[in-house]
Amino acid sequence: MFPFAAPVRDLRFVLEELLEHRSLALPAFDETSPDLVEAVLEEAAKLAGEVWGPLNASGDQQGCARREDGGVTLPDGFIEAYQAYAEGGWNGIGVSEALGGQGLPEVVASSVQEMLHGANMALGLCPMLTAGAIEALAHHGDDTLKATYLPKLVEGTWTGTMNLTEPQAGSDLSKVRTRAVPEGDHYRLFGQKIFITWGEHDAAENIIHLVLARKPDAPEGNKGISLFLVPKFLVKDDGSPGERNDVVCASIEHKLGIHGSPTCTLSFGEGDGAIGYLIGQEGRGLSHMFTMMNEARHKVGVQGIGVAERACQHAFAYALDRVQGKSARTRGECAISDHLDVRRMLLSMRARTDSLRALALYCAAELDVARHGGDESERQAAQARVDVLIPVVKSFSTDQAVDIASMGVQVHGGMGFIEETGAAQLLRDARIAPIYEGTNGIQALDLAGRKLQRDGGAALNDLIDRVEATAEALGGNGELTALGESLAAGATDLRAAMAVVLEQGSDAERGADAIQAYATPFLNLAGHVLCAWQMGQSALKASAAQAAGNSEPFYQAKLASADYALRQWLPMGRANRTVIEAGMSSLVAFEATSP
Amino acid sequence: MFPFAAPVRDLRFVLEELLEHRSLALPAFDETSPDLVEAVLEEAAKLAGEVWGPLNASGDQQGCARREDGGVTLPDGFIEAYQAYAEGGWNGIGVSEALGGQGLPEVVASSVQEMLHGANMALGLCPMLTAGAIEALAHHGDDTLKATYLPKLVEGTWTGTMNLTEPQAGSDLSKVRTRAVPEGDHYRLFGQKIFITWGEHDAAENIIHLVLARKPDAPEGNKGISLFLVPKFLVKDDGSPGERNDVVCASIEHKLGIHGSPTCTLSFGEGDGAIGYLIGQEGRGLSHMFTMMNEARHKVGVQGIGVAERACQHAFAYALDRVQGKSARTRGECAISDHLDVRRMLLSMRARTDSLRALALYCAAELDVARHGGDESERQAAQARVDVLIPVVKSFSTDQAVDIASMGVQVHGGMGFIEETGAAQLLRDARIAPIYEGTNGIQALDLAGRKLQRDGGAALNDLIDRVEATAEALGGNGELTALGESLAAGATDLRAAMAVVLEQGSDAERGADAIQAYATPFLNLAGHVLCAWQMGQSALKASAAQAAGNSEPFYQAKLASADYALRQWLPMGRANRTVIEAGMSSLVAFEATSP
Repeated sequence: MFPFAAPVRDLRFVLEELLEHRSLALPAFDETSPDLVEAVLEEAAKLAGEVWGPLNASGDQQGCARREDGGVTLPDGFIEAYQAYAEGGWNGIGVSEALGGQGLPEVVASSVQEMLHGANMALGLCPMLTAGAIEALAHHGDDTLKATYLPKLVEGTWTGTMNLTEPQAGSDLSKVRTRAVPEGDHYRLFGQKIFITWGEHDAAENIIHLVLARKPDAPEGNKGISLFLVPKFLVKDDGSPGERNDVVCASIEHKLGIHGSPTCTLSFGEGDGAIGYLIGQEGRGLSHMFTMMNEARHKVGVQGIGVAERACQHAFAYALDRVQGKSARTRGECAISDHLDVRRMLLSMRARTDSLRALALYCAAELDVARHGGDESERQAAQARVDVLIPVVKSFSTDQAVDIASMGVQVHGGMGFIEETGAAQLLRDARIAPIYEGTNGIQALDLAGRKLQRDGGAALNDLIDRVEATAEALGGNGELTALGESLAAGATDLRAAMAVVLEQGSDAERGADAIQAYATPFLNLAGHVLCAWQMGQSALKASAAQAAGNSEPFYQAKLASADYALRQWLPMGRANRTVIEAGMSSLVAFEATSP
Repeated sequence: MFPFAAPVRDLRFVLEELLEHRSLALPAFDETSPDLVEAVLEEAAKLAGEVWGPLNASGDQQGCARREDGGVTLPDGFIEAYQAYAEGGWNGIGVSEALGGQGLPEVVASSVQEMLHGANMALGLCPMLTAGAIEALAHHGDDTLKATYLPKLVEGTWTGTMNLTEPQAGSDLSKVRTRAVPEGDHYRLFGQKIFITWGEHDAAENIIHLVLARKPDAPEGNKGISLFLVPKFLVKDDGSPGERNDVVCASIEHKLGIHGSPTCTLSFGEGDGAIGYLIGQEGRGLSHMFTMMNEARHKVGVQGIGVAERACQHAFAYALDRVQGKSARTRGECAISDHLDVRRMLLSMRARTDSLRALALYCAAELDVARHGGDESERQAAQARVDVLIPVVKSFSTDQAVDIASMGVQVHGGMGFIEETGAAQLLRDARIAPIYEGTNGIQALDLAGRKLQRDGGAALNDLIDRVEATAEALGGNGELTALGESLAAGATDLRAAMAVVLEQGSDAERGADAIQAYATPFLNLAGHVLCAWQMGQSALKASAAQAAGNSEPFYQAKLASADYALRQWLPMGRANRTVIEAGMSSLVAFEATSP
């Protein structure tokens, strides 16, 4: 099993050179110095590489097991690894100081998340869900709820979950049936939730479930849904966990991947009803839940990138070590990394991972501005860009991660199909990311529908202007001219496709169908162009470093990576414009009546 | 678990309408009527649907186990299912009558293979390997070997294996070290072979291993390698299995998929040496092995199509059943198949599976001509087309199958990630097909290198001429004009890309690198164009059927499928021309020195 080394050098390149540490210029981060950021990354890399990473394969092999007593046994070492994380203060790094966190910028928190997911995606899910619970509670909980639950969640001594899905209510949450019956200052919940990530475990003292449910007299549909907080253990007056609440793990799922993450069916109210507390306003449950969903989607994208990075590391290590065949250049025996067909796979994996990381952290930097920018209009403009970028980061990163992990298997040849190698686990693990936190199809509809239609494409146009500025800068840079031409063509394609989606999407009669039909190719086109843009920036920075006399091989690799991304990968994505312009007639004509 | 229904209607469409049963016009198949073919397909569909299919999931869950005594226990029901196949005479349907088979055309044998692999890929591997052994033995074995082994292999009472890989010799078989020491009329073999599919089991009376090894005095490299036949049980004078030979299963692999297929490490000569017999000429082992490899590659492509078909069936069944969200057209509750974004996935899966099937069977029909054509030049021309098509059928079908199976998981949403659904198994199973029988990278090198360079692209040009004829026919057909334009553009791209590969590939200095660099994008481009061509033919036939008054919904579905393939899928593949024209500089510049 090849050990995971957190990509500190690559992350620093993005934070320091691509983003020029612009989050640190915000007044909110006055006390955050570049040195501190570097120290945080180095420490996180140790936790990822030395504590979490070594448990990835054993966690997969061992999996989780539901016990007779309704508890769930985690893989060996997971409890200790989670506690090392919580005790190290990592759970609060991105949480504001007002809530007891360290208040570091989102770009730093996202970098740390990427490392931890690369080390151990199954374990990384636990704090990812807690972060969502913190977010929802901080925004919508009353003071009592916040005082009782937030400090423990921020410390990580308690963990959080999101309870949305029911068998009949997946992508369409309006169908939620779980009931919440008022009783004094609280509610009694009855119902069953499925696919609850880290829904039951012993890694923390308590588990705080955030649950969508409806009051008995609530209207049907979205407006009848409220959000409730249901602790595993009711909290005593002294703030410590007391009596067991009426929520139990009925079963855990047997899944393709992330075996170390217990996916539970939770049963609420098999007895007198699980005691729960209303969060925020009645009937606003979906809206409150989406507060956390939006940022959770960014985190899922980052998770995909972590797994993609690990797949790169595995594939490079194998390809550099495996001697097979003769070199086309030296005619002697060589490692397979010397064969250009294998190198094509390695470079494709590396270039895509580089570009996804750069875009996700660009989005995180915009999030920092949206939260902490100096004036309202600056914050709003950043938020508008974030709104467009998040569905791209979530779905494009995770689709690509699946493909990158699959290519990693291929680099290994026959060994890739053998589980002991570890390459196959990365593919199995990655495969969930395009599905959860809103399927990638839902993300694409969000982009092509709500996000694009509501501002007539203004925020995306703003981003495309930036893409064109980068293309122009490349054009003025001797050797990078061809990269600039390719990027400019990509920008043109994206604008043309956007025009189709905006025009047909606004049609009263067929607009909804048009958005459905174009959503996924449009998101893929946007993903390619925006990622290629970041690689254009990357080429400019690497070229400048070389021009300044820096001969670190890192920059040469980044130039090759950018060249590949812009001239070999982007053209494949650009073809989505043709797909969109071909129209939706075949989809409409196709009656999916039978297999 | 959704049951598998063999796609008889689709196979008949290809055989009867697309190929117009032209194999049956060959004198060799005088006695094969369309009615007989139809009856064969119907019977095979029963075996696939009723006997093999129901064991697919249980075989995956149970897997194989190596016993203390060195034997391997198959999943429940596999022995009986294999024997039902052998006793039904299915093993010999494509084998010539001279060798004891039924001598049916390759198009029919391939159709049956697709059904069986779709039903149960892990089980389907057993006869696939036997077919390779029959082929090699029939071509290169002496009369004694043929008399002793062929009848049993053709009947299927004995099965065959291919023993190529050793830990240091995978894609580069010149590194084979297994020794064969002469002893009278036979040899004693010593060595270890890995990744031996169905290398040990109790489903048949005997297992006939075909083994690459070298004599003690043999030269290094390819020329020292010979092919040997090593039976599990030595054969007595009366032809029945006798004493156990000195070959044992040392272990079986723990794999990502095809759990029902035992992948063995075989140890030859732990005692006095495994008795083996030379097949063909000394030092010609690789060449003899490639006799069977070429057709085995076609079979792997067909296998991918079988799994893709099953993935379609699962996804369609789920999407038609799962009610979620509101229809953009009726505004009422609907099955998810009504959402165009989901329908896009279903149509993409269907269109690609249709097109891969059509191309694989077109190749099979050419194989029939190559073997049984009336005159030498006709046979040679067909063989030249087969030589170009086989690497495309193998690698394009299997790459696409992985993607189709992955899309099938996505259609299922969260349920796709749960193993019980069965969608994930198809992805896990499919993932081996791009790796074995020569990785897809090796196939691409075969196409862009040997196959293209040796005739200057003549055979592929011949195929592109046919593509253009189809484009022209579409152009003259009112509603299909846009399809014709798209196909013609694809043909132009393929010729342009071929010119680059031929020119740069013939360079004495950099030719080998150029072929490596362009091989995979070139194969992908060829795959898209050739598959789209078949869908163009499909549209012409469906349109003709409708014009003749046939209102079967099948033809409407085929038209939508063709429209999607030509106007939404082909453009994505066409972008590979741009990738090739961008050159190989980034690959050459990228030093894969470290992760």
